Amino acid sequence: MHAVGLLDDARARIVAPDEDVAARTQRALDDKTKPRRSLGRLEEIACRLAAMRGETLPPPPVKAIVVFAADHGVVAEGVSAYPQEVTRQMLLNFARGGAAINALARQAGARVVLADLGVAGEGEVVPGVRAMRIGAGTANFAHGPAMRPEQARVALDAGVALARELARDGVTLLGVGEMGIGNTTSASALTAVLTGAPVEQVTGRGTGVDDAGWRRKVEVVRGAIAHNRPDPANALDVLAKLGGFEIAGLAGVVVGAAAERVPVLVDGFIASAAALVAVRLAPAARDYLIAAHRSREPGHATLLEALALEPLLDLGLRLGEGTGAALAMGLVDAALRVLHEMASFAAAGVSDSGR
Amino acid sequence: MHAVGLLDDARARIVAPDEDVAARTQRALDDKTKPRRSLGRLEEIACRLAAMRGETLPPPPVKAIVVFAADHGVVAEGVSAYPQEVTRQMLLNFARGGAAINALARQAGARVVLADLGVAGEGEVVPGVRAMRIGAGTANFAHGPAMRPEQARVALDAGVALARELARDGVTLLGVGEMGIGNTTSASALTAVLTGAPVEQVTGRGTGVDDAGWRRKVEVVRGAIAHNRPDPANALDVLAKLGGFEIAGLAGVVVGAAAERVPVLVDGFIASAAALVAVRLAPAARDYLIAAHRSREPGHATLLEALALEPLLDLGLRLGEGTGAALAMGLVDAALRVLHEMASFAAAGVSDSGR
Repeated sequence: MHAVGLLDDARARIVAPDEDVAARTQRALDDKTKPRRSLGRLEEIACRLAAMRGETLPPPPVKAIVVFAADHGVVAEGVSAYPQEVTRQMLLNFARGGAAINALARQAGARVVLADLGVAGEGEVVPGVRAMRIGAGTANFAHGPAMRPEQARVALDAGVALARELARDGVTLLGVGEMGIGNTTSASALTAVLTGAPVEQVTGRGTGVDDAGWRRKVEVVRGAIAHNRPDPANALDVLAKLGGFEIAGLAGVVVGAAAERVPVLVDGFIASAAALVAVRLAPAARDYLIAAHRSREPGHATLLEALALEPLLDLGLRLGEGTGAALAMGLVDAALRVLHEMASFAAAGVSDSGR
Repeated sequence: MHAVGLLDDARARIVAPDEDVAARTQRALDDKTKPRRSLGRLEEIACRLAAMRGETLPPPPVKAIVVFAADHGVVAEGVSAYPQEVTRQMLLNFARGGAAINALARQAGARVVLADLGVAGEGEVVPGVRAMRIGAGTANFAHGPAMRPEQARVALDAGVALARELARDGVTLLGVGEMGIGNTTSASALTAVLTGAPVEQVTGRGTGVDDAGWRRKVEVVRGAIAHNRPDPANALDVLAKLGGFEIAGLAGVVVGAAAERVPVLVDGFIASAAALVAVRLAPAARDYLIAAHRSREPGHATLLEALALEPLLDLGLRLGEGTGAALAMGLVDAALRVLHEMASFAAAGVSDSGR
């Protein structure tokens, strides 16, 4: 019961972003030497961040990107272009700093927090990777639930606990990313059930399956939904039957971050599926999300719509790992720099049109 | 004749980006631990930059943002929400580091190169601002040409010379921006004539005119085109009759940068109008352009189409100054980091699907 407690506790502690603070921040921006609102979404980011943090002039963020890795039993159905062992290999690559997320996190000035939520195999100890294993990969949801409800709850709680730990460690901006061969199949199934969208609309090519592979993937997702009969109104049921350990963990991170008033830059398709699970479990968490980018994975648009989020970037990415979140961190930094460093009309002696 | 020489010389020296280099860079990216092309436009930027620079692994760029300021006689027609003195005031603000471009250039790690191309008044000496004055603002093109053809040529040459100087000083990535009350009116007129698009389609609200102001602006642009009868096939004629000193200068910077194989991040509407003038004068310069962002100013879409460029960012900016170019520099840095820092499949021991 302790495990259930963490999620419920976080859910209860989420307060709405402070809209008075947002309005004051917008007034400060309106005083800067530029036409009103001429910095578009940078001004919006600055105001949202201020409202989330509850301070008119939030200091430059302390950034971390959480990357959760886990394996998916559904790969047995031949839904991925890569073999399952790549999840473990990539986790080692992350730990050694050689993956895209490492390069982009360095660029963003963000630390990368790696965790094994359930990579297939024994679960070797890897320096720099937290062991938060729920199992050795999920079961194949083509033939039954991906995990037991208790496993979903433990993964959610583990995510909440990590978000709390990072917030207490001073982190004020989180990115969430993932690695898991087969996890676009899980994200497609979650998206179809939670949004009601047709399976073929929310199923893409993932890391690169061909036409036949795509058709098989659609059939697997359809079959899994028919077989498991998840209750769309019960996010925990949907998550347990069709999710993944890393997705459940990230959903927990989202809820936990919202409880700590830490903004979350949501990465691509899979991270957004986790975010939608989080928002179905804790609707107030939604207002702590910033959509980093629009993925090329077709189901992502459906998720963004369900979350009512407009992404900051649209660069044709389809990698995951938190790469889009890392890229968007540069825009958050830029927005806060404008707030901190620009002169006011009065201070600069510039005539203001009032517009 | 010396002045004409610089532009002609630069024009003759432009070589096409090296497509063999681009292909080699793409192969290097295909070897990195990620599905092929999964970093979307980041991979495209890395390859384009490599092709422009002529080296498969271009080092991290040395960045500068050129900001040219000048005044526009057409403000006498009441086309701007701000008084003309704001051009000079903002140039001082730039020099003191208090404007948006200063904050965003610091974020990008770029130096800001400021020049007065013809701000109204005496042309006071401002520390940190280069005096490249062609006059004390253009003439009001509602009643005659904005400038004499020789002035346009001198401004173009000055831009070419500055690009050359910066390249020789080690700069390998340029952003171009501007400041000039009234210059969206000039950019709208240039865009209408050079692309053939209807005036009302390419005329926006600039820094914020109201409905009546917008209608006046459209009428002023229509009247100016009818009165001056520029030859759409002669970019120098169009530039002299409807341009501005800062626009002419930036067109020169674009041609000069292309001659030095220095990529140019084009900012918003006015900078893109300058880029289109440059490309009409020197078509080969086009392949050294990267569109930083899509401005909210409606004529920008028409210019991007004419330049056949797809912008990297779409953040609802409408400020100019080079702010969009500065923001996009972070993406260029990120693209090069991926190229430099990511491990290959072989080095990381990750299985490759070949896709």
